[in-house]
Amino acid sequence: MCRWAAYIGREIYLEDIISRPGHSLIHQSQCATKCHTAINADGFGLAWYGDRETPGQYRDVLPAWSDPNLKSLIGQVKSSLFLSHVRASTGTATSRNNCHPFTVGRWSFMHNGQIGGYDAFRRDAEMMICDALYPQRKGATDSEALFLVALGLGLDADPKAAMEQAAAQFEALSKARGAAPHMRLTCAFSDGKRLYAIRYASDDQAPTLFHRWSSSRGGRAVVSEPLETGQADWCSVPANSFCTFEGKDMTIEPFTPSCEEALAAQ
Amino acid sequence: MCRWAAYIGREIYLEDIISRPGHSLIHQSQCATKCHTAINADGFGLAWYGDRETPGQYRDVLPAWSDPNLKSLIGQVKSSLFLSHVRASTGTATSRNNCHPFTVGRWSFMHNGQIGGYDAFRRDAEMMICDALYPQRKGATDSEALFLVALGLGLDADPKAAMEQAAAQFEALSKARGAAPHMRLTCAFSDGKRLYAIRYASDDQAPTLFHRWSSSRGGRAVVSEPLETGQADWCSVPANSFCTFEGKDMTIEPFTPSCEEALAAQ
Amino acid sequence: MCRWAAYIGREIYLEDIISRPGHSLIHQSQCATKCHTAINADGFGLAWYGDRETPGQYRDVLPAWSDPNLKSLIGQVKSSLFLSHVRASTGTATSRNNCHPFTVGRWSFMHNGQIGGYDAFRRDAEMMICDALYPQRKGATDSEALFLVALGLGLDADPKAAMEQAAAQFEALSKARGAAPHMRLTCAFSDGKRLYAIRYASDDQAPTLFHRWSSSRGGRAVVSEPLETGQADWCSVPANSFCTFEGKDMTIEPFTPSCEEALAAQ
Amino acid sequence: MCRWAAYIGREIYLEDIISRPGHSLIHQSQCATKCHTAINADGFGLAWYGDRETPGQYRDVLPAWSDPNLKSLIGQVKSSLFLSHVRASTGTATSRNNCHPFTVGRWSFMHNGQIGGYDAFRRDAEMMICDALYPQRKGATDSEALFLVALGLGLDADPKAAMEQAAAQFEALSKARGAAPHMRLTCAFSDGKRLYAIRYASDDQAPTLFHRWSSSRGGRAVVSEPLETGQADWCSVPANSFCTFEGKDMTIEPFTPSCEEALAAQ
Repeated sequence: MCRWAAYIGREIYLEDIISRPGHSLIHQSQCATKCHTAINADGFGLAWYGDRETPGQYRDVLPAWSDPNLKSLIGQVKSSLFLSHVRASTGTATSRNNCHPFTVGRWSFMHNGQIGGYDAFRRDAEMMICDALYPQRKGATDSEALFLVALGLGLDADPKAAMEQAAAQFEALSKARGAAPHMRLTCAFSDGKRLYAIRYASDDQAPTLFHRWSSSRGGRAVVSEPLETGQADWCSVPANSFCTFEGKDMTIEPFTPSCEEALAAQ
Repeated sequence: MCRWAAYIGREIYLEDIISRPGHSLIHQSQCATKCHTAINADGFGLAWYGDRETPGQYRDVLPAWSDPNLKSLIGQVKSSLFLSHVRASTGTATSRNNCHPFTVGRWSFMHNGQIGGYDAFRRDAEMMICDALYPQRKGATDSEALFLVALGLGLDADPKAAMEQAAAQFEALSKARGAAPHMRLTCAFSDGKRLYAIRYASDDQAPTLFHRWSSSRGGRAVVSEPLETGQADWCSVPANSFCTFEGKDMTIEPFTPSCEEALAAQ
Repeated sequence: MCRWAAYIGREIYLEDIISRPGHSLIHQSQCATKCHTAINADGFGLAWYGDRETPGQYRDVLPAWSDPNLKSLIGQVKSSLFLSHVRASTGTATSRNNCHPFTVGRWSFMHNGQIGGYDAFRRDAEMMICDALYPQRKGATDSEALFLVALGLGLDADPKAAMEQAAAQFEALSKARGAAPHMRLTCAFSDGKRLYAIRYASDDQAPTLFHRWSSSRGGRAVVSEPLETGQADWCSVPANSFCTFEGKDMTIEPFTPSCEEALAAQ
Repeated sequence: MCRWAAYIGREIYLEDIISRPGHSLIHQSQCATKCHTAINADGFGLAWYGDRETPGQYRDVLPAWSDPNLKSLIGQVKSSLFLSHVRASTGTATSRNNCHPFTVGRWSFMHNGQIGGYDAFRRDAEMMICDALYPQRKGATDSEALFLVALGLGLDADPKAAMEQAAAQFEALSKARGAAPHMRLTCAFSDGKRLYAIRYASDDQAPTLFHRWSSSRGGRAVVSEPLETGQADWCSVPANSFCTFEGKDMTIEPFTPSCEEALAAQ
């Protein structure tokens, strides 16, 4: 089912989110509490923004808890905006190219959830990736395909509209050719300036999404599940939400993919 | 550019082809002599047939010479029909799913060569994979796509015709959207009963193909380049050939993909 | 804490023990029930005997459930005597050389348990490995060291005596320089002819050991925990036992490492 | 035989040394020119210093040219002092723990060369590692052992003396128990403040060592072989030299391990 954690704010070491907290992402790779899969050991990944326009990316298939490279990296690298993810596969092979976050140009994207019965319409999904972006398709996950389709639909110009359209198209495909649950989508993505997050599902089981501003740190963690069990001030994001985080600010708008339209168009 | 070696005949240890000869496949992974890339260290793979209808498959991204698992495996496993391959990437990432041989059901397939400018028409190529086989598309190589398209075109019923058609379609795509050299195709594949090999190119530079019957072993090696430098009785297969090996027998027929037809059809 | 499964008897596919049973070894890598660590995802390994005098060996650091090479291998390889193991590290790094089973010549060895406070006397332990065998020390585990010491103490000539001596030496070291619990030793090893297993601990918490003869299969499984939850005829081996399995036969003798002697000798 | 490259000076992206130059370290992993092994594909590693007292470390077994993680990392991370290495094994297994640079506390160390016949006296070498540092012994290379012995001999207090002593001890062991060539030692190491390099051999074949100050960059590259073929101002360091680099300064002193003393002491 995957777990992820993102951060935006004042520069911190990646480990301050990924490994140091009591229920850090690495801890969640072994015993997550708010999803079906306690173990998320089918790979992990990071994308972090620094001086360059494009983010750094580090992905591997080892369980997150046992990779000394990861441990070293997150203890050295500082960033003011980063994404991190531990994977529990919903079917596709364990390989680096199937690990999140995915990166294209300055964008990075990670996903917790699934698109029901994806194997049955995988080809149709991939056909929705525009020509210019097709060479970026490196793995076989529904998540990467969704990201590439959204990019082609104008993630640059209007992230919310592009994601609504992409999600609608995938959900429609799942309704027509796949299986329930059709769409579970709790994801985060960034262009290096803002951090975006979505919590949405076609049913009432949208995977959880929380966030918390830390004054001491001067930054906000946006996560699948709270990084500390004791802390009461983690805010839960309601389902059907599109969040935009920039600096200290955040806005939440309704996220409403229009499936009927998309179904009709197919 | 890759190197490969296949075998059909009386059961032998895989190592008798893959590592023991003076210029074995593993030796070729470090210093091949009959192709551009002396080093073929972007992964390796095996497919071997035994009691089961489907072949075993073992692929990894390490250079072949440094994998102790491979060494152990080929020293233990015996087979009367197997394929082995060491890879030099022509662009796609080094990952297990991009290593040859590929297997689908009882078929296995490996390739040395390339399809010119593949990245520019990769999507069109993947669209030619039929629905039923699309879930088998695990990597991003032109080789795997070619194999899946050929399977869909009836590799079971008529291997030569299916491969001619598939090669023609890919060559036509390359001519329309890609770059020269359009098609370099020296490949081997099997259904567990017969071993097939093709040597073909759209120009005059078809990668080499040799074979040699060994009476002592009671089997035939079919290879990119001879496994011993001293042996004079390696037979070179001419370009534009489709070979069928079964038991001790072999037949060679002309291999003539019809590109004009395929170009017209696009 | 690790889980393992061994087999001796009529030739079967490795998968008949490793993946097919309801609570197979691979199932145990995700949710073992009779030990502290439900998850055993710090690598896995196989050693199997065939026509050769030395066994085949295959080890990797991926969780057992996600390796397609493993899946393919165990579906193809048949053996009448094999060892398989999934690892939960007690401290040492996740690397192929730290995965069990270890092999030296015709011997193979795997271990579930630990030697308390090993890091504090690791050097002394390694110094007990005889010169001739030192080049075989490839990793950094207590298990591999114990195996090499036992080999040097005459595992060939008298397996029980050699293991008693080796266990006593390590337990004495742990008592002198390490920490409680000093010795937890449920292990299996083989020379390709017989399968041996030990269940022993310096306290009353010896990791579990079971076995079961299958008439249909014509062989015996020797395991950390039963491979099917429904089957009532799994026999538990009592603590302080040394088992020898050959063909259909089995003998159990007391296993009594003499720590006082060993402590005195240090 | 390995190749390596180090840097000290004004902060630069790691890629400015490791991948961007015409004959960069990654280029050398495929076609080095000043050593026996053109190919250095048995793993690679980096150690880099930043804000923390201890360096970051990243090592993997893939050939350097094919790892997307490495490519991304070196394009993002900046450092004013770093070590990088591509490995050609002289016998020991390809595994992360056998890749250079090794790190202990704030020290990092990498080596090009070998210690003749090491397998025959490996145990004696490891016994020279002091108790406190023994837990740091993770792999099986002669290089890591040499580093740990030097640390125990006071690398902190007097790097040159400690390395002379350590080299002498290993060379003596090789003369007594190993094989010629006894010691080939071109290495680099750092405590995060200064960069040290040695060029030494027991015969007249000390692996090459060059350095070059770049005014534009404000830093110095210290390397196995020059990073650009065209540049005339690479300075070759003579054999039997101990170099200390700090900021823009460099000093070269004679490096004279006293083997007769060490041989007598054994």
